[in-house]
Amino acid sequence: MITSTSNPQVKMIRKLKDKKERQQTGLYYMEGIRIVLEALQMDMPLKEIILAPELITGQGIHEIYQEVQRLEIPVTEVSGDVFRSFSVKEGPQGVAAIAHQQWTDLKELIPVTGDVWVALDSVADPGNLGTIMRTVDAIGGKGVILLDQSTDPYDSTSIRASMGALFHLQIIKANLAEFVQWKLVSSISIIGTSDSAEMDYHDFRFPDPIVLLMGSERMGLQPQHYKICEQVVRIPMVGRSDSLNLAIATAVIVYEIFNQRRTK
Amino acid sequence: MITSTSNPQVKMIRKLKDKKERQQTGLYYMEGIRIVLEALQMDMPLKEIILAPELITGQGIHEIYQEVQRLEIPVTEVSGDVFRSFSVKEGPQGVAAIAHQQWTDLKELIPVTGDVWVALDSVADPGNLGTIMRTVDAIGGKGVILLDQSTDPYDSTSIRASMGALFHLQIIKANLAEFVQWKLVSSISIIGTSDSAEMDYHDFRFPDPIVLLMGSERMGLQPQHYKICEQVVRIPMVGRSDSLNLAIATAVIVYEIFNQRRTK
Repeated sequence: MITSTSNPQVKMIRKLKDKKERQQTGLYYMEGIRIVLEALQMDMPLKEIILAPELITGQGIHEIYQEVQRLEIPVTEVSGDVFRSFSVKEGPQGVAAIAHQQWTDLKELIPVTGDVWVALDSVADPGNLGTIMRTVDAIGGKGVILLDQSTDPYDSTSIRASMGALFHLQIIKANLAEFVQWKLVSSISIIGTSDSAEMDYHDFRFPDPIVLLMGSERMGLQPQHYKICEQVVRIPMVGRSDSLNLAIATAVIVYEIFNQRRTK
Repeated sequence: MITSTSNPQVKMIRKLKDKKERQQTGLYYMEGIRIVLEALQMDMPLKEIILAPELITGQGIHEIYQEVQRLEIPVTEVSGDVFRSFSVKEGPQGVAAIAHQQWTDLKELIPVTGDVWVALDSVADPGNLGTIMRTVDAIGGKGVILLDQSTDPYDSTSIRASMGALFHLQIIKANLAEFVQWKLVSSISIIGTSDSAEMDYHDFRFPDPIVLLMGSERMGLQPQHYKICEQVVRIPMVGRSDSLNLAIATAVIVYEIFNQRRTK
């Protein structure tokens, strides 16, 4: 059992809070019984499980032990103090894991009928990204395409907000040039969303398969994105607000797509 | 100009981060050029404006000076260090305000045709609450009814997420007994949302006027709430997620209500 917070392995775990460290190692940190259990059950590529026996009281821990044995994943035991030194939760449950990030290569992506993809340009808020993943999963979407300077889906806030959807979706990173190239090769329809568009989203028949392209929180859809959209749609607003939260706008559109397909 | 962070007025401002202090004083703190300008333009009851001239560079400051003069609101000038001692923003813009909370009394609320109200049971996350207010405003909703142990709409995270919608909506606080009493007197239709309901939200014709009742993030709609709903609807999910974020679920339903009314 590791009892020193300056143990090298413990330092490595703490470092995973940094996006740079996550990028360099290809690893990420997740915490909590529910999410670790889900990762185990989904056979996610886990590097190690971290347990702090003195903190563990929650339900579900027996399933975690069973799965860990079945999958033969290395377990590191640490003291409560050590666990708290890297915990990202209030009231830590004493269960965490280090996992390998999984990225899908855009070039290998061949869209098929039924597919819904959401492309996000420079999404800044990891909470928004996680919430969008959760919603895309809920409507049976395939994944998210993160364009340019998007935040990291493996940030702990994003992981928490995704409620496990991160494990079920394909996650893709690309720059605009790669995205445009892929659109040409795959001939998929890209539909954008913007407050300044003329077409009401509720009057539009969304194509199938589809990539829904959303602009960033601060800037919205940019001119270079408009150009690659087959259509740009608008969500009407009649109050005093002139915009919606990005995760909300995405949800309103993907549920419209979902509703159109299931009532065909 | 106040230059000491232990000045009593500055201490009072810092204390407004506490929900208890806000409840006792009936005041709240808002920060940033955009939101303060909006509060001024909406004639919100401001107690004072706080300016840190050395931090102010942003656009919109001239409008703020004009509005402050027009409305004869007391201005307190503070040093940059003092401002940073109570700032809730990264990169503070040097503009803040203390305002009087505004609550609508449920007993005085008489719903009329066209009204959309959202009642939230024990909403815990101020970011969710702010985002819900922003969305309710966007569809032209009238306000939010906060039931029982709901978080404070005047929390700075809620204010930020509401993007000014807080100023346009009626905000009501009530316990369940008061809410039930009001339902009887006003004979308004209450429609709930739950994963376990049978009625698909997209197949349901929402009544007008309406109160949409949402359960809490952790617990969802409770049995005592089911009882007072005319109908409980479900948002279908086909992925692996078994629930949506509360603000997302609320948005999906209120946009359905909005779409049904505008396409009537």
